[in-house]
Amino acid sequence: MSDLLFVGLDVGGTTMKGGVVDDSGRMLSAVSLPTEPERGQVSGLERMCETIRQGVHAAGLQMGRIAAVGVATPGLMDIPAGIILDPPNLRPWRDVPVRDHIQSVFGLPTAFQNDANAAAYGEYCFGAGKGCRSMVLFTLGTGIGGGIILNDRVLEGEHSHGAELGHIRIELTHPRPCGCGRVGCLEAYGSASSVVKRMQELLSHDPAASSLRSGEEFTSRDIFTAAAEGDHLAGRIVEETAFYLAVGATNLMHILDPEMIVFAGGMVHAGDTFLERIRHHVRALAFSVPAARTQIRFAQLGSDAGLIGAAACGRQLFHRLNGAG
Amino acid sequence: MSDLLFVGLDVGGTTMKGGVVDDSGRMLSAVSLPTEPERGQVSGLERMCETIRQGVHAAGLQMGRIAAVGVATPGLMDIPAGIILDPPNLRPWRDVPVRDHIQSVFGLPTAFQNDANAAAYGEYCFGAGKGCRSMVLFTLGTGIGGGIILNDRVLEGEHSHGAELGHIRIELTHPRPCGCGRVGCLEAYGSASSVVKRMQELLSHDPAASSLRSGEEFTSRDIFTAAAEGDHLAGRIVEETAFYLAVGATNLMHILDPEMIVFAGGMVHAGDTFLERIRHHVRALAFSVPAARTQIRFAQLGSDAGLIGAAACGRQLFHRLNGAG
Repeated sequence: MSDLLFVGLDVGGTTMKGGVVDDSGRMLSAVSLPTEPERGQVSGLERMCETIRQGVHAAGLQMGRIAAVGVATPGLMDIPAGIILDPPNLRPWRDVPVRDHIQSVFGLPTAFQNDANAAAYGEYCFGAGKGCRSMVLFTLGTGIGGGIILNDRVLEGEHSHGAELGHIRIELTHPRPCGCGRVGCLEAYGSASSVVKRMQELLSHDPAASSLRSGEEFTSRDIFTAAAEGDHLAGRIVEETAFYLAVGATNLMHILDPEMIVFAGGMVHAGDTFLERIRHHVRALAFSVPAARTQIRFAQLGSDAGLIGAAACGRQLFHRLNGAG
Repeated sequence: MSDLLFVGLDVGGTTMKGGVVDDSGRMLSAVSLPTEPERGQVSGLERMCETIRQGVHAAGLQMGRIAAVGVATPGLMDIPAGIILDPPNLRPWRDVPVRDHIQSVFGLPTAFQNDANAAAYGEYCFGAGKGCRSMVLFTLGTGIGGGIILNDRVLEGEHSHGAELGHIRIELTHPRPCGCGRVGCLEAYGSASSVVKRMQELLSHDPAASSLRSGEEFTSRDIFTAAAEGDHLAGRIVEETAFYLAVGATNLMHILDPEMIVFAGGMVHAGDTFLERIRHHVRALAFSVPAARTQIRFAQLGSDAGLIGAAACGRQLFHRLNGAG
């Protein structure tokens, strides 16, 4: 094992997380600071640097021990330019030169990546995808995000819009409205929010049919728990969700034919029974060769995927600059 | 311009076409021989070699002038191994070592590729996609095929199943049956066959509503012609087809975010009016940045795309072997 060390910084709308990750993906430290985008982007850039410093300090290290930095932020962005453009959940930030700022402050090679892409790259290097050549990650939350890694390269797209996997249209006739303003997107069927919404719809038609109550607040996890306890309506929602996610996975298999499909997000806690239902539907939906050979797994890095993935992007940059990648 | 010359061979179920292509994509010769797969694969391999020889001869050249060969065949195949496995339209061929056979007969570097991928690579190098970095090709015929080129690399997939673009599912609720045995595939909506089938369906409900007659044989081109002449029912079919193809294009844009989307096949003859309708729907369906920036074009190489693309694959192999690619 080499003793190269990297910093990962994962910037979200609420908090930013920074920490040190070693060359084998082990996280040596993690600190969180509030993002508070409303304080403006100058303050935001300062706080990014502060989070990096605290992360290094928390690992008992000095900056001189760090080989490279990786920063992951939400979109919209220009990835090759290292700039956050106009990200909805970092308002009022606009045209923030994240990469060059951090690079100049620390004098270290600094990689910049979309947060979902970084999480996918983290899983690819050190998590569920370790050792595989190509991988597609679906992140299931309020929305559906994703990342595509082909032969150790993050598919960024020509306009930094690659892997918007939640916004593949899968329904024409009766499309559900999607959070993006469009209709019929995979996200409107397979996200955690959609699980809740579809359950509320079923309950509104048949309020007594479930242990969950119409109008009451519940989460997708409550629905998965109810399904596991034998609730038929919740079971139907879970089964439909597995089918929708299998449609998304199959579409990606028929386009990219990757070695592995990985699902991340809270639904991972539903466990192997749910994963097996997704696999079941993929086997029925996909061409026989990819159906038999494509691995379908749950993610392994949990909420650390963004930080570890950002560090992995820094690590990749370091190895490229040093001719080993 | 260099004077490097390449042979392309495009093997189809009915005929195989071979010819010489120069380093700038100009086709110097093209000959066709019947494939006659029923004669068996030994005969098939001999005929491939004969087609190559005749193609070189037709260009007034000797084999010694050829730098490399490229061969394109229909699937199923193992692209890295250079083997046709079990292609439906080349029965009873099975496990045919195409690449190694041709390579050993001529003693020339020989590339092997799926025919749709090769056509896409031809358009990428020398046709609609010339000069762009990443391109997705949809080939619209009886079915829908495709190819994906990212940074001068054909996306083959881990199991030689990449770019099965006709078999992205776009409908859940009332899915049309697809020729592949599945339902709801893009091919069941946007292929030339689907254009005819959907027109027949409309006519069966309202036989007097069109200049085309229910039950009579007509082609997708007849429908496009009728639409151009003001036939409302045909116009509706054409408009729906533009929408379906835009859904397919948008799905690929949201996954890969390529620089360009190209449509090939007979429908290209429908011309700019049809292309403009596809673009119109893409602008409405896609995220604003890719909607504004992704180029959407018709293919330029026509039925030569497979031969030219196969030669382009040989050319790429030659340049790689010689350290220039």
